[in-house]
Amino acid sequence: MSSFGTLFKVTTYGESHCKSVGCIVDGCPPGLKLSEADIQPQLTRRRPGQSKLSTPRNEADAVEIQSGTENGVTLGSPIGMMVRNKDHRPGDYSETDLYPRPSHADYTYIQKYGLKSGSGGGRSSARETIGRVAAGAIAEKILTAVNNVEIVAFVSSIGEVSMNRSPQDPAFQKILNTITREEVDGAGPIRCPDASVRDEMVKVIEKYRDAKDSIGGVVTCVIRNCPIGLGEPCFDKLEATLAHAMLSLPATKGFEFGSGFEGTKIPGSKHNDLFIFDEEKKRLRTKTNNSGGVQGGISNGENIYFSVAFKSAATISQEQETVTYEGKSGVLAARGRHDPSVTPRAVPIVEAMASIVLCDQYLIQQARNSTRSILEKSQ
Amino acid sequence: MSSFGTLFKVTTYGESHCKSVGCIVDGCPPGLKLSEADIQPQLTRRRPGQSKLSTPRNEADAVEIQSGTENGVTLGSPIGMMVRNKDHRPGDYSETDLYPRPSHADYTYIQKYGLKSGSGGGRSSARETIGRVAAGAIAEKILTAVNNVEIVAFVSSIGEVSMNRSPQDPAFQKILNTITREEVDGAGPIRCPDASVRDEMVKVIEKYRDAKDSIGGVVTCVIRNCPIGLGEPCFDKLEATLAHAMLSLPATKGFEFGSGFEGTKIPGSKHNDLFIFDEEKKRLRTKTNNSGGVQGGISNGENIYFSVAFKSAATISQEQETVTYEGKSGVLAARGRHDPSVTPRAVPIVEAMASIVLCDQYLIQQARNSTRSILEKSQ
Amino acid sequence: MSSFGTLFKVTTYGESHCKSVGCIVDGCPPGLKLSEADIQPQLTRRRPGQSKLSTPRNEADAVEIQSGTENGVTLGSPIGMMVRNKDHRPGDYSETDLYPRPSHADYTYIQKYGLKSGSGGGRSSARETIGRVAAGAIAEKILTAVNNVEIVAFVSSIGEVSMNRSPQDPAFQKILNTITREEVDGAGPIRCPDASVRDEMVKVIEKYRDAKDSIGGVVTCVIRNCPIGLGEPCFDKLEATLAHAMLSLPATKGFEFGSGFEGTKIPGSKHNDLFIFDEEKKRLRTKTNNSGGVQGGISNGENIYFSVAFKSAATISQEQETVTYEGKSGVLAARGRHDPSVTPRAVPIVEAMASIVLCDQYLIQQARNSTRSILEKSQ
Amino acid sequence: MSSFGTLFKVTTYGESHCKSVGCIVDGCPPGLKLSEADIQPQLTRRRPGQSKLSTPRNEADAVEIQSGTENGVTLGSPIGMMVRNKDHRPGDYSETDLYPRPSHADYTYIQKYGLKSGSGGGRSSARETIGRVAAGAIAEKILTAVNNVEIVAFVSSIGEVSMNRSPQDPAFQKILNTITREEVDGAGPIRCPDASVRDEMVKVIEKYRDAKDSIGGVVTCVIRNCPIGLGEPCFDKLEATLAHAMLSLPATKGFEFGSGFEGTKIPGSKHNDLFIFDEEKKRLRTKTNNSGGVQGGISNGENIYFSVAFKSAATISQEQETVTYEGKSGVLAARGRHDPSVTPRAVPIVEAMASIVLCDQYLIQQARNSTRSILEKSQ
Repeated sequence: MSSFGTLFKVTTYGESHCKSVGCIVDGCPPGLKLSEADIQPQLTRRRPGQSKLSTPRNEADAVEIQSGTENGVTLGSPIGMMVRNKDHRPGDYSETDLYPRPSHADYTYIQKYGLKSGSGGGRSSARETIGRVAAGAIAEKILTAVNNVEIVAFVSSIGEVSMNRSPQDPAFQKILNTITREEVDGAGPIRCPDASVRDEMVKVIEKYRDAKDSIGGVVTCVIRNCPIGLGEPCFDKLEATLAHAMLSLPATKGFEFGSGFEGTKIPGSKHNDLFIFDEEKKRLRTKTNNSGGVQGGISNGENIYFSVAFKSAATISQEQETVTYEGKSGVLAARGRHDPSVTPRAVPIVEAMASIVLCDQYLIQQARNSTRSILEKSQ
Repeated sequence: MSSFGTLFKVTTYGESHCKSVGCIVDGCPPGLKLSEADIQPQLTRRRPGQSKLSTPRNEADAVEIQSGTENGVTLGSPIGMMVRNKDHRPGDYSETDLYPRPSHADYTYIQKYGLKSGSGGGRSSARETIGRVAAGAIAEKILTAVNNVEIVAFVSSIGEVSMNRSPQDPAFQKILNTITREEVDGAGPIRCPDASVRDEMVKVIEKYRDAKDSIGGVVTCVIRNCPIGLGEPCFDKLEATLAHAMLSLPATKGFEFGSGFEGTKIPGSKHNDLFIFDEEKKRLRTKTNNSGGVQGGISNGENIYFSVAFKSAATISQEQETVTYEGKSGVLAARGRHDPSVTPRAVPIVEAMASIVLCDQYLIQQARNSTRSILEKSQ
Repeated sequence: MSSFGTLFKVTTYGESHCKSVGCIVDGCPPGLKLSEADIQPQLTRRRPGQSKLSTPRNEADAVEIQSGTENGVTLGSPIGMMVRNKDHRPGDYSETDLYPRPSHADYTYIQKYGLKSGSGGGRSSARETIGRVAAGAIAEKILTAVNNVEIVAFVSSIGEVSMNRSPQDPAFQKILNTITREEVDGAGPIRCPDASVRDEMVKVIEKYRDAKDSIGGVVTCVIRNCPIGLGEPCFDKLEATLAHAMLSLPATKGFEFGSGFEGTKIPGSKHNDLFIFDEEKKRLRTKTNNSGGVQGGISNGENIYFSVAFKSAATISQEQETVTYEGKSGVLAARGRHDPSVTPRAVPIVEAMASIVLCDQYLIQQARNSTRSILEKSQ
Repeated sequence: MSSFGTLFKVTTYGESHCKSVGCIVDGCPPGLKLSEADIQPQLTRRRPGQSKLSTPRNEADAVEIQSGTENGVTLGSPIGMMVRNKDHRPGDYSETDLYPRPSHADYTYIQKYGLKSGSGGGRSSARETIGRVAAGAIAEKILTAVNNVEIVAFVSSIGEVSMNRSPQDPAFQKILNTITREEVDGAGPIRCPDASVRDEMVKVIEKYRDAKDSIGGVVTCVIRNCPIGLGEPCFDKLEATLAHAMLSLPATKGFEFGSGFEGTKIPGSKHNDLFIFDEEKKRLRTKTNNSGGVQGGISNGENIYFSVAFKSAATISQEQETVTYEGKSGVLAARGRHDPSVTPRAVPIVEAMASIVLCDQYLIQQARNSTRSILEKSQ
């Protein structure tokens, strides 16, 4: 379905070729200062056509708040937001009338819904993520206000070129501790904060672009200052809802947090994050952070960090030998120009989904925690 | 929260030290033949104490159906199921009164709930998964009946020892096509179907067991004969709900499906799964299956396969230098005997969660699809 | 929250003084023929300013579909709909800056949300129902297509003037069996199909209008051709979800179905609806219909009928001695002109909510029922 | 479905003829003192066989907490509760194999689920309400602790004999202000606090009992000290969720709150609840309370009161001319003894559902409100 969240609930609508895309954010607490200026920056960051590395489609993606605020403050009522579709040029995709694009959603949408649409796999379009990014900007503003939460995502690998993202690597930990969005964007369109691999990443993308091909990558995200105690045991563990959120993004193939898949190779005696007492914060902390800031599904106050795998974009200008919907052999090549790597543009989208997850879990925990405080005094 | 699913909804209860653990399965279609005998086998497979490789706790884990069936057939009403707790021996865990166990949930539970319990991080206990496995057995029986769906999980790596699980590897694809639960269990308690690495895996576990340490691993799962068209675009993509389900299991650190993290390194021209026409099935199929059976969040009829990373168990008998809840330095060693690797026991739990996800998505798609058929004729 | 429904899920946004109001309809089956022309008529029916009996505000309330359809057919993706706000004239309400309007939501909104808005009790505005009516028109079109469901609401009482709506009254039963929307609207703006009380009702409204007062009334609704078997036992009985839907409408004070409150006075021996065999339909039916078409929470194929009480509108032009937010005594009189009776305008809104409830329950039952059919053959 | 609530979520299972009935209460805040002794009294109040006015079935209905508490305090984890079925005597109902009982759920259950069960309309049994009452006792304990909320239901009419329950009646308002459960039960099994009609009510029930017939009635419920600000605008107004909860109870036909259906006859100028300043509480209150404590879907601090219509019990020992499932005419008379009026026993069930609704809305509001407070200080 098109809704996500329990108390901070985001519902999106829209595909590539319709009038507008947007969302309704229900459950935003009242009293938050909010205007389009808070939302537009992340929308602009996700916009295609920003560099030679990405699609030259020209879409302003200007958000318009429809409801839920007055005099720049949220009312507590649902916030409707909309971004008009301008530059859809459906002609560019016309061969999809004959051919289901390989590894795209054309075929499965027809199987699921029983009809072919001009949008092909309409809701699988990256354009659907606009609503998420708009909602995420609101979630993030709440999190910043309540606990100075910082959420920063960046490109950590492109094809074979990768940063060292081992939890044991001090340089990686330092990046997690300090990286800012300014630094990420300051690194150019590649959005990789590690100068030692950045240029090589750009070259990889250019190589595949020139070959009318595409290449995948990994986006890593860190959440700092997450309140302790977020995440619901059992089915809605913090990492489970983060995984849900991330794998709901187009083109994703994997999710890992903390030590991740590599962590399966580290014996317990080394993998366990021993507790220490932090004299400054006057509370327990952990010496290492293989847990990625989450234990038993609940945030422990350390940095939460995770990585998301984005596959090589399915749409390439190269010719592909495939078959039509009716099964006749033929050759398909996407017209127009296409992103050789969607990974850098995914950065603000990953941040948005992380914000939405956290804000929802925060509100849920507030309900319990504030009630518990009252119970403590009253019984 | 403790519920999962929309139309096939599973709600679980119970922790280590209470009277019983169990679940309510709501939304099971009526008319399914069902008795305890359908549920017990998977519960028995997940039970600890089955081999020298796992915990020697002795729990029969016999399930009792409380409601929802009559004469061995489901009524359509909620199915209550319960397994009594017998062998809890709380004394074994008494040091947790002083020390939060490293990388366990003791600390975060206290932070979240404001109180210390004898169970430590109660709902983070593996015992909570009993309800899931019982519910999964029902889901699986439905899936088998409606489309002969086959769901088989197995251990694909232990520590550094791993099967080749590249989507390009023909041997791996063959395993995905043919592996059965009988073969998995026939491989002994290690539950790895690949004879070339199996013995080495056992040795790795024995090594860490003897060192009072633990080691992690990866469980891979394949779903065959999944109906085409399952999965909801946008937030509830099939892979997103699978990821949610898997990362909600204790001790998991990552999830990948199809080509996964490796897939980010394969250029689009090679990663794309070109369509071919299957003369036998009279429908399109794909030549390769890097997509892992899902495109645009919707099943395409190919094998769905994914892998789940399980960290090295946090509870080890080795001494660990850590601090008490009050921050005083000290040494903690778990008493009793503990699983050196939880990975093999996770196999039926992964299968259960996959079944629950699929059954729920199947029912949702049935609603739409059957209504669409009626609309087609009536308009 | 602002969402309603499980598989046919409606999420609305908007208050009186914002840019637009609207909704997202998620879960609409694909393949439904749909354009604005299907939705506009009910929106027009709910529009104020249609007669001397109602508010003279001039709002075109033209709906614009934003997404989810192509070439006049639904895609299965969420349907965004929007109606712009044109005629809000916030000045008219300015005294609400000082006074909470009695029996309106100004006071409770401030208490709940901690801030005063120009809209007063923003989401309690009748304008919020636009999204519901738009969504209801889609739901109704589905129901008509799948089972020729007919949903007709009408005014059954105004103040003390009431139709006989006893289940035992043959004239009332005849109206339930045959009444159409054309007949309801043909009765003039009062929307009461019973000629014997209609004129008197109009006079009552005119009397209160002239006295700058208001008067309440009852809307009765009948659903014909409801498929048998809709409604979920236990918490989501058909009547429970209908009651939820109806009491969520502004200004409602009560809900009863079938024999209702009067039915509590009829002994079981007379109240029980005895079964008869309908030779034509080749199935059981009931001789009487005190049950209102629902038994045990599930539709039984008879007419579903229920009544909804609408209180006298809170906004009146008469002076009222009340206090300011700060507790100072004063006199408040609403400026502008106001509906002396909202009851007739509620007719299409009641129909909309009934349609949404039924469509959602229909989809849920389709999921179970179609799966059961498959199980029957496969086991 | 069998779940109710968002943050305080109750899921029930069980029908008449299975092993046990019970529920899982998910989302109960940690730190609540709780044992079976808190839950049993309301279960005992709902138990049949308590007087000559009700069924002589002998069921102890002893609740057993399975999980979620330790040392008499809630852990924050789900609370499993169970009551064993003892006295089902399925033989008593055997004629239901041939005949669908009129106005019972036998026919609709078979239509919905496609199979006949020994329980007839299993989940429509009053026995299903045990789980609700157990859950309600927990909800109520929370509400009492946090705000001294008082919830008291009582019988306000039996057949034609009714208390005056007009909002304008001072005696009725006095009852609402002061009535306690002790007084309700002190009135004998009829549970009507109004001595002027009580004896007549008993006589009415006895009359119908002797005639092997049954009679309906109305239960009225008052909630005192409800925190201001509960209820979610739009779809989840406080009265809408209360209506949902009440109409989900077996045998209900109607719901009204505040002035209810009578209120439609009172002009706005009299119906409006004018504000006054309460010097003692230092806040606004209303002079009258036609609103029933809710304005715009949100509690305003006044008494919340509502009434629920219960139809005459469908099961009567009298002979009824009806037809078999196959449509053959015949005569059905229920064997055994049956409640001539279920209304008095509904009292604790109505209280339970009211508690569940309120507790859930309270937790939701806590989430928003506590976040708003933090936002206020941080922006």
